[in-house]
Amino acid sequence: MRNRIITLTTDFGYKDPFVAEMKGVILSVNPDVTLVDVTHSIQPQDIEEAAYVIGSSYSYFPAGTIHIVVVDPGVGSERKALVLQAGKHFFVGPDNGVFSHILNKKADDHIHQITEEKYMRPKDSHTFQGRDLFAPVAAWLSKGLPISEFGPSVEDLVTLPIAQPLVTEGRVHGEVIYIDSFGNAIANITRDDLARLGVHYSVEINNKVVRKVQYYAQADENSLSCLVNSSDHLELFVKNGNGAKEFNLTKGFKVTVVK
Amino acid sequence: MRNRIITLTTDFGYKDPFVAEMKGVILSVNPDVTLVDVTHSIQPQDIEEAAYVIGSSYSYFPAGTIHIVVVDPGVGSERKALVLQAGKHFFVGPDNGVFSHILNKKADDHIHQITEEKYMRPKDSHTFQGRDLFAPVAAWLSKGLPISEFGPSVEDLVTLPIAQPLVTEGRVHGEVIYIDSFGNAIANITRDDLARLGVHYSVEINNKVVRKVQYYAQADENSLSCLVNSSDHLELFVKNGNGAKEFNLTKGFKVTVVK
Amino acid sequence: MRNRIITLTTDFGYKDPFVAEMKGVILSVNPDVTLVDVTHSIQPQDIEEAAYVIGSSYSYFPAGTIHIVVVDPGVGSERKALVLQAGKHFFVGPDNGVFSHILNKKADDHIHQITEEKYMRPKDSHTFQGRDLFAPVAAWLSKGLPISEFGPSVEDLVTLPIAQPLVTEGRVHGEVIYIDSFGNAIANITRDDLARLGVHYSVEINNKVVRKVQYYAQADENSLSCLVNSSDHLELFVKNGNGAKEFNLTKGFKVTVVK
Repeated sequence: MRNRIITLTTDFGYKDPFVAEMKGVILSVNPDVTLVDVTHSIQPQDIEEAAYVIGSSYSYFPAGTIHIVVVDPGVGSERKALVLQAGKHFFVGPDNGVFSHILNKKADDHIHQITEEKYMRPKDSHTFQGRDLFAPVAAWLSKGLPISEFGPSVEDLVTLPIAQPLVTEGRVHGEVIYIDSFGNAIANITRDDLARLGVHYSVEINNKVVRKVQYYAQADENSLSCLVNSSDHLELFVKNGNGAKEFNLTKGFKVTVVK
Repeated sequence: MRNRIITLTTDFGYKDPFVAEMKGVILSVNPDVTLVDVTHSIQPQDIEEAAYVIGSSYSYFPAGTIHIVVVDPGVGSERKALVLQAGKHFFVGPDNGVFSHILNKKADDHIHQITEEKYMRPKDSHTFQGRDLFAPVAAWLSKGLPISEFGPSVEDLVTLPIAQPLVTEGRVHGEVIYIDSFGNAIANITRDDLARLGVHYSVEINNKVVRKVQYYAQADENSLSCLVNSSDHLELFVKNGNGAKEFNLTKGFKVTVVK
Repeated sequence: MRNRIITLTTDFGYKDPFVAEMKGVILSVNPDVTLVDVTHSIQPQDIEEAAYVIGSSYSYFPAGTIHIVVVDPGVGSERKALVLQAGKHFFVGPDNGVFSHILNKKADDHIHQITEEKYMRPKDSHTFQGRDLFAPVAAWLSKGLPISEFGPSVEDLVTLPIAQPLVTEGRVHGEVIYIDSFGNAIANITRDDLARLGVHYSVEINNKVVRKVQYYAQADENSLSCLVNSSDHLELFVKNGNGAKEFNLTKGFKVTVVK
C-alpha cells in the first residue's frame, strides 16, 4: 500500500496557491504518496467538463489510484461529499455530477458519503473543502483505510444528463462535447457507434462532408478533416491549425454520420 | 530526514524551462526529495504578491518543508541571499521582502546569509541564482545540513510595508490585497479584525453595503457578496461570476466594515 | 536503478488530460519513477522551439535521466520513433528534429529505432504515440533495459538546420532564436563567440548600439540592454519590462556584434 498515487482535477488554475495547499495537506498525512495533476484548467465551475476529463483519463493510471475531483460551485451547501470505488479506482469529490462518466460504467461500484469528522481538517471551512475535507480523506485512503471508514454507504449519486448520440436507421446524430487546446473538436460519437454503420460512412457538419483520415499528418491544411482519436471518439480538426476557431466549432455543435 | 519536501514559488511562468532546470539541480544533489510547485505565475517581479502567496500557503505543508521563493528583480546586485528558519519551516530566497509575511509572525526565527560557495553551482551566474544558488542550497538543506552551515547569522532582513487595516472606533478601513483566478477579491481584513466589531457589522464598498453570506452557493448571481474565506480573510465575490472584472476591483480598492 | 527521473517536454498545454495520461501509463509500468515537467507550452507543432528548450535544459538533470520529447505533427506517418543515448542522458521521441541540439554535441551517441511492439501499449494509436509508445518505452527504460532492447540501431536521424551566427573579421552576425516569458530575447551568439572578439565589442540592432551590463538590475528601465545570460547566450532585455514587446523583437531578428 506504500507509494499510492493521488491525482488532482480542479478548476483552481495555476496562479493561486490553492492546489499547493491541498498537496501540503495530503503530504502532511501521507508523505510517501505520488501526486499527479490531471488538470487545474477546467472552466470555472464547469461540472460537465470535469466529468468528461476525469472520465476519459482515469483508466490510464494503475489500479489503486485515488482521483480527487474538485469542481464544486455548491461548496458549503447541503450537497454531499463522496468517496467511491469504481472497479480498481477510487474517487473523492462533491456529489454534483463530476463522477457521471465513471459510475455509469460499472456494476460493482461502491459509494460512501464522507461524514467522519476525524478525517477532515480540524477547522473544516465552508469555502475550501478541497483542502479541508477531500485532500485529507484522499490521503487517509492512500494509507489503506477502507472507504466504509469515512461514512455510510449511499445508494445513489447525482449524475448529469450525458449527451448521447441519437442513432436512427443508417444515421448517427451527435454533437461536439469537448474542445482541446489544439482546437480539435471531440464529438460524443464513438468507434463503436461508427462500427454499427459498417465501413462506408460519411461525416457531415452543416450538410457538408468532412474528409476522413487515419492520422493527422494525412490531412490537408486549411480544411476540416476528421478521424477516430486516441480516446475512440470522432474528432474534427485542421492539420497544423485550430479547427474550432477556424470553423466556429463549439460545444453542442451538431455532427451527423450517414451510412 | 529522507524524503523531505521542497516547494517552489517563482515568477518564471510555465513556458520556459527555468523551473525544470532548478528541479534538475535539486535532484542532482538529493534525488529523494519531493518537489511541489506552489505557483510560477506570480506577476513578473511582484515581490508583494510573492510574499502574500507563500505567507498564506506555507503552513499547510508538514514540519521540515523547505520553501524556495524566487521573485528576484535584483539578482546579481548587492542584495543578500538568505536561508532562514521560521518555526518548523525553512525558506530560501533573496533578501528583498518576499519573506515579509513569514518573519513577522515568529519570535524564534533564525536568519543566515548564504555565502558558502561550496554549496552553489561551480559557475554561479549573475542572472539565474534560482538555479545556481537557491536550488542547490535548498537541496543541501534537505539532506539535513543546519542553516548555519551556509553562512553567517544576520539580525535583520528587508521587509515590505504590509498593508494593515486601520481600526477606528466601530470601523475597520481595509483594502483589497489579492485577486485570485476566479476573480475573488481578498481584503487585508481578517476574521479577528471582524470579531472585534461583534456579530453585527456591515461591509461596504463605495458606500454601498455588500451582502454577507457563509459560503459561495448562498449568494445571488450578478451581485457582489462577501464572506470570510478559507484563509480567514474577508473576500468579495460574485457567485458563478468574476467579481473583480464585473465590479472593477483591483489591488488597493478600499473596503470598509462598519459596526 | 531505482528512482530514475523521467522529464516531459510537449506542446500539449496544461488544459487537457493528455500529459496526465502519459504519466499514468509511465507509473503503471514503473511506479517508483520521479516525473518532472520541463514544459508543455511549446508552441503547437514548433519542432525548432522544442529542440532549443530540451537542448538548453537537459544537462541540469542527473546522469541517467530519461527525457521524453513529444512535439509530433507527423504522428502516425512513416517518421521513425527513436530512443537514444547522448553521454549519460537518454531521450525518447519522434525522428523529426527535436533532438537537433543534443546529437550535434556528442561523438559517443547511440540511436535506436523503436520497433518492439511488446513495449508499446497493446492498441498503439495512430494519433497519440506520446501515451501509447513513447511513455511506456521511457518507463521500461527507467527499469534498466538497454536501449538496444527496443529496436535496431540506426545511423542517422533528422536534424534541423540550426541557425548559426556568421562570423566575419571583427563581426558576428546572429539572430534571435527564443523569446522567454519575461520578453527577454535570446540570440544564437554565445559567450565563446563573443570571447573571440576580445573584451571590447559593441552589440547592435538596427545599427544602434545596445547597452551592455552584467546583470539585470544594472540596466536602465525603458531602454533595451543586453548581457550574457545564464545559458551563456547573448540576451536582449528591458529592466522591469517586456523587451520583445516594447522593441518588436521576434525570432529571426538580426543582432550584430562589432569589435
